[in-house]
Amino acid sequence: MDLKVSARAAALAGHLSMGNASAEVKDTSILGLGNPMASMAVERTKASFPIRELTYFLDGGKEVTAVKERMMTELERDPVFQNVDFYDLTKEQLRERTMSKIARLIHYITSEREEVSYLRFSLVGLIDMSLLTRTGVHYALFFGSLRGSASQKQFAYWISQGAAEMRGMIGCFCMTELAHGSNVAGLETTATFDERTDEFIIHTPHIGATKWWIGGAAHTATHTVCFARLIVKGKDYGVKSFVVPLRDPKTYDLKPGVSIGDIGKKMGRDGIDNGWVQFSYVRIPRQFMLMKHSKVDRHGNVTQPPLEQLAYGALVVGRVSMVADSAQMSKRFVTIAVRYAAVRRQFTSKKGEVETKILDYALHQRRLLPLLAQTFAMQFSSDEMSAMHRALMRKIDSTDLSDLKAMAVVIEELKEVFTTSAGLKAFTTWACAETIDQTRQACGGHGYSAYSGFGQAYNDWVVQCTWEGDNNILALSAGRGLVQRYLDVQRGANAPPQTEYLNKLARLKSAQAGSRQIDSVAVLSEAWEAVAAAVVSKAGESFIALRKKGLTADEAFEETSQQRFLAARIHTQYFLVLKFFDRISSSGPEIKPVLTDLSYLYAIWSIENNAGLFLQAEFFTSKQIDEIRELCNLYCRKVREQAVPITDAFNLSDFFINSAIGRYNGNVYENYFTQVKRQNPSKPLAPYFENVIKPFVHRVAEVEVDAEELDEDEA
Amino acid sequence: MDLKVSARAAALAGHLSMGNASAEVKDTSILGLGNPMASMAVERTKASFPIRELTYFLDGGKEVTAVKERMMTELERDPVFQNVDFYDLTKEQLRERTMSKIARLIHYITSEREEVSYLRFSLVGLIDMSLLTRTGVHYALFFGSLRGSASQKQFAYWISQGAAEMRGMIGCFCMTELAHGSNVAGLETTATFDERTDEFIIHTPHIGATKWWIGGAAHTATHTVCFARLIVKGKDYGVKSFVVPLRDPKTYDLKPGVSIGDIGKKMGRDGIDNGWVQFSYVRIPRQFMLMKHSKVDRHGNVTQPPLEQLAYGALVVGRVSMVADSAQMSKRFVTIAVRYAAVRRQFTSKKGEVETKILDYALHQRRLLPLLAQTFAMQFSSDEMSAMHRALMRKIDSTDLSDLKAMAVVIEELKEVFTTSAGLKAFTTWACAETIDQTRQACGGHGYSAYSGFGQAYNDWVVQCTWEGDNNILALSAGRGLVQRYLDVQRGANAPPQTEYLNKLARLKSAQAGSRQIDSVAVLSEAWEAVAAAVVSKAGESFIALRKKGLTADEAFEETSQQRFLAARIHTQYFLVLKFFDRISSSGPEIKPVLTDLSYLYAIWSIENNAGLFLQAEFFTSKQIDEIRELCNLYCRKVREQAVPITDAFNLSDFFINSAIGRYNGNVYENYFTQVKRQNPSKPLAPYFENVIKPFVHRVAEVEVDAEELDEDEA
Repeated sequence: MDLKVSARAAALAGHLSMGNASAEVKDTSILGLGNPMASMAVERTKASFPIRELTYFLDGGKEVTAVKERMMTELERDPVFQNVDFYDLTKEQLRERTMSKIARLIHYITSEREEVSYLRFSLVGLIDMSLLTRTGVHYALFFGSLRGSASQKQFAYWISQGAAEMRGMIGCFCMTELAHGSNVAGLETTATFDERTDEFIIHTPHIGATKWWIGGAAHTATHTVCFARLIVKGKDYGVKSFVVPLRDPKTYDLKPGVSIGDIGKKMGRDGIDNGWVQFSYVRIPRQFMLMKHSKVDRHGNVTQPPLEQLAYGALVVGRVSMVADSAQMSKRFVTIAVRYAAVRRQFTSKKGEVETKILDYALHQRRLLPLLAQTFAMQFSSDEMSAMHRALMRKIDSTDLSDLKAMAVVIEELKEVFTTSAGLKAFTTWACAETIDQTRQACGGHGYSAYSGFGQAYNDWVVQCTWEGDNNILALSAGRGLVQRYLDVQRGANAPPQTEYLNKLARLKSAQAGSRQIDSVAVLSEAWEAVAAAVVSKAGESFIALRKKGLTADEAFEETSQQRFLAARIHTQYFLVLKFFDRISSSGPEIKPVLTDLSYLYAIWSIENNAGLFLQAEFFTSKQIDEIRELCNLYCRKVREQAVPITDAFNLSDFFINSAIGRYNGNVYENYFTQVKRQNPSKPLAPYFENVIKPFVHRVAEVEVDAEELDEDEA
Repeated sequence: MDLKVSARAAALAGHLSMGNASAEVKDTSILGLGNPMASMAVERTKASFPIRELTYFLDGGKEVTAVKERMMTELERDPVFQNVDFYDLTKEQLRERTMSKIARLIHYITSEREEVSYLRFSLVGLIDMSLLTRTGVHYALFFGSLRGSASQKQFAYWISQGAAEMRGMIGCFCMTELAHGSNVAGLETTATFDERTDEFIIHTPHIGATKWWIGGAAHTATHTVCFARLIVKGKDYGVKSFVVPLRDPKTYDLKPGVSIGDIGKKMGRDGIDNGWVQFSYVRIPRQFMLMKHSKVDRHGNVTQPPLEQLAYGALVVGRVSMVADSAQMSKRFVTIAVRYAAVRRQFTSKKGEVETKILDYALHQRRLLPLLAQTFAMQFSSDEMSAMHRALMRKIDSTDLSDLKAMAVVIEELKEVFTTSAGLKAFTTWACAETIDQTRQACGGHGYSAYSGFGQAYNDWVVQCTWEGDNNILALSAGRGLVQRYLDVQRGANAPPQTEYLNKLARLKSAQAGSRQIDSVAVLSEAWEAVAAAVVSKAGESFIALRKKGLTADEAFEETSQQRFLAARIHTQYFLVLKFFDRISSSGPEIKPVLTDLSYLYAIWSIENNAGLFLQAEFFTSKQIDEIRELCNLYCRKVREQAVPITDAFNLSDFFINSAIGRYNGNVYENYFTQVKRQNPSKPLAPYFENVIKPFVHRVAEVEVDAEELDEDEA
């Protein structure tokens, strides 16, 4: 290789200089490096669609984009939200910083409409997941419980105490116990009614019933909504919720009988002060039980509502927001990896040429671009899920609780939303975890640097797969719902829109791609309908066969666990594919082609990943599966051309991306080096040089003792 | 539920009491909790095989087990190695602690045989991956380079300087640059010969050539082996290695022209002081170039060896050890999750009964037990890989370098070892990452606590998938090797033992399970041979077709990337399955049944995961794939019975498990609570109470300004 530098190379090298590095950029071959910023600029010239239009489409309209951009500006400019040092903070620093941010956020939360706050939270979650949770513990869990389960009078009382503003009181949510997570009905904390004093006695009977993982408990909460078994006159009425004061809001002294400790270090989300709480015969007024649904009167008479299921409707909101978070977080990490791949060069096909962008390698496209397509699928399914949820909530609010017939209809819809949201929550939070992991790997070694953002985000993210319903349990529950739908249909009922395919089982059973063109909405939709129908039917038939053998329903469900899980997975994937196609039908002509390529890539890649099931359903032949693999390569190449403009359409500023290797300008090496030096100023010696390194490296050699010298002379 | 406590329950509750918790364990229903220690003891009574025999078999003999146990004792008792606070250490603390441990380890390293040290390192790696790497940077990379690439005289010189003992000098390894990782041949640091002074000038031409990720550089190294382009009289001879002093070993002052900085925070392995290094015209004596292979004499005459490939043989050792690490680390996390699942109870089938162990749920078995089986497969493949590697090294050492015919044979074998180790390194390090992740999820919320060990281990582990050959690049290279073997066989050559199936392509093409029993070594082996043959053939045929279309070999390889990747994946899986079966044939009669169940589970589960390929290969029918799914359930149930004894056979003490929820006694809740309290002693107020929480919660309400009052009176 000729090391003399051409005039052009020298000019390019000039671009690379910055800060301390500049002095060194002289005698250089930059063939390997290329010019990252120029490489990035070239990518942007390839846009075949108006990026702004795609942003509006993703956001749900120009007006929403405007609101989001205003919020982004507010956050970016606020000194408390500065995050350049985010990845170097210790647990203690993160906790303090998070609380400081809440103190800034409160102004907006208390002065804007709730929907607007949701939008703000979704942005906040991108840059600091702990912050989102810690705010959510008060608003979504504590305050949300009050709203959902307190009587009107009770609710007014807690508002008067400052619950809506986190002023004079801060709430937490004591549900999970050390020995009980998924099985909420099995919680063991007790709330025993003492008729003499008109109080409940809240008590932790043993170590396993210690409230555990309680966000906000270790440092911040003054009150909690506590889940405990209602015991009245020796009878156990099951788990209800109670407001229990934990600390004096003035001094933060613990209330008598309340023991609280810090849960300590976690895999991630160290900005949240999770704690454990034990209650030792803590007395609260009877009126602190939340009595919108169940009630206990002065004389210990217990009233339970006919339709307590409605109380669980509130739990769905967490799942719905996690589907949205999955799409949001995927946008961030796909953007980083696509930008990096557009400027990172490695290996050259011809000696002396600039090396090839890694985004141009077929396998790299395979690794990244289906995840880009999946991000769109998640966004659109999330929008659909939110709309379903809003419609349901409106219906619940407008239905007369005493009209049992009307309520039965609402409850059917609630079940549907439960099943759909369970599956979506499980498989999108997993997909997002996988996306963070795969995009990190796609950035090679630099993905492992804290400053690229992946490590922290992965650690913060993955708890989404476990909390508010462990993904496996949710998937099984979604699968149970699907089997039940199948049984309903076998009994002559009509399946609701979400499982429309169950109404055309016979036709789908014989459906085949045949000689039709595979990359078309018609064939790809039908393929997913057919495979969903096949997998759900198989699970349903297994269930029926087991019941015929004499198993109870519970036993038969347990026996078909793996099939239910598979049914939920495939049904959810079907939902993601079909909602993608549906949504495109409403897109403008300028962005339709790029959206169509993305949707085909997503559908085809998903088929490839489940090839065995499509072959078993006999929808595709073995030869067509080979064709699917080729099509997947083809659509990767298509999407590759637009990859940078597409991620630009996600419209996340560098502040929200917060990655030294994923910034808009593509100047990765300078950005990264600058960040590394800023966060790690040079020190002449390691802090442990004198104590550890020096004595070690300067030690004298171990001398072998010649023990024989000590022998008594036997001669 | 009756809350009165029976005598038996009270007795059990007594077991649960410990420390602070004891006072509270009185009025309790422990139905949900069961008695964890008793639950665990019951599992151990189920062992149908002598656990100790299985340990010996896994370790490779009773004698090896004895040596390992001696080492475990040495480590456990050493106060410097205590690790109860490991998960709470900051980056700075980890770095210091790691160095202190090296100072302890050195005694053993310098006084025992190398094979024994390897065994010790494999144990050390279990408890502190940073420690393993930081020691390895000196011994495997720096010292290993000297041994592999220095002339005899040079090697003796560096030994005399203390290189073998890390005394007077500590080495690091400057290979990777900011802009070059995988493409080592593209490195841009230069080593220009100055004939006038008989020196090399080591220089970093631009920011992209900054040495990056250099373990040990930030704090500890005095010398480095630096990879740089050899430039003599204006000619570039490609990348060679040079010893470059970085710091004065006495004062640790940086040598003139050497700039070093700290890379800072990483996703994991914070115990390693990774740094960046820039060289500005640094002069070293000509004799510091490592000249075993290439040589430069006083007059700038360059001699290059005919067979430089042999120098790369040394690189394989890293891969081989990572396969072993994958098995080792999987043992640790599978043990934790199996133990937890054996005592964790959730949900009950009948009201009032003790809840069900989560290990008894079908889906939970599916999640954990194939990973247990996979751990065995990895262990046995690793043993095979190590044996292959040792045999090769012996052959290299005993072959006359000038005997070109003999050398050609050795190089063929080297290629084979390269391909096999590339595939195994990629897919076992991925499998281990997946195992840590899945076992964490299987422990639910408690898996997210730092004290369960998963988070730290995942973060420390995953870099294995990226360094010393990014897994994707290695897989592609393994796939390339397989395609080449296929082409060789098409040209009439005989395939070597690792790809034996290529010698019987015609027969395997028509092979089918037919009516034979699936769960048998014969059918499962043939299934994997048939599918490997099919996938490799398909990739090979695609390559041939593309070449016929006029593509160059490089272009055709690039076009078949996805197929090569798939070929490598399936070939490696085939290797894992077959080596498992092979190894069992040498096991004693008492442990053969349990090993056979594990091997069937592994083979069957792997088939299920690749059902599409088996259907395409027409080895199994669609109906048989359904049968495979059922068999997978069946073998999960079989293995479940022995799961705890099997993990006990891994013979890892609590010290090496280092997980509050995975200890031998099964007393999870007490162990965990005690650890949480120990690491997080109660404090009355948060450190940021006065500055942040108090002003926030006690703030006065925001007053809305009535701006109209400021209007000029217009009336």
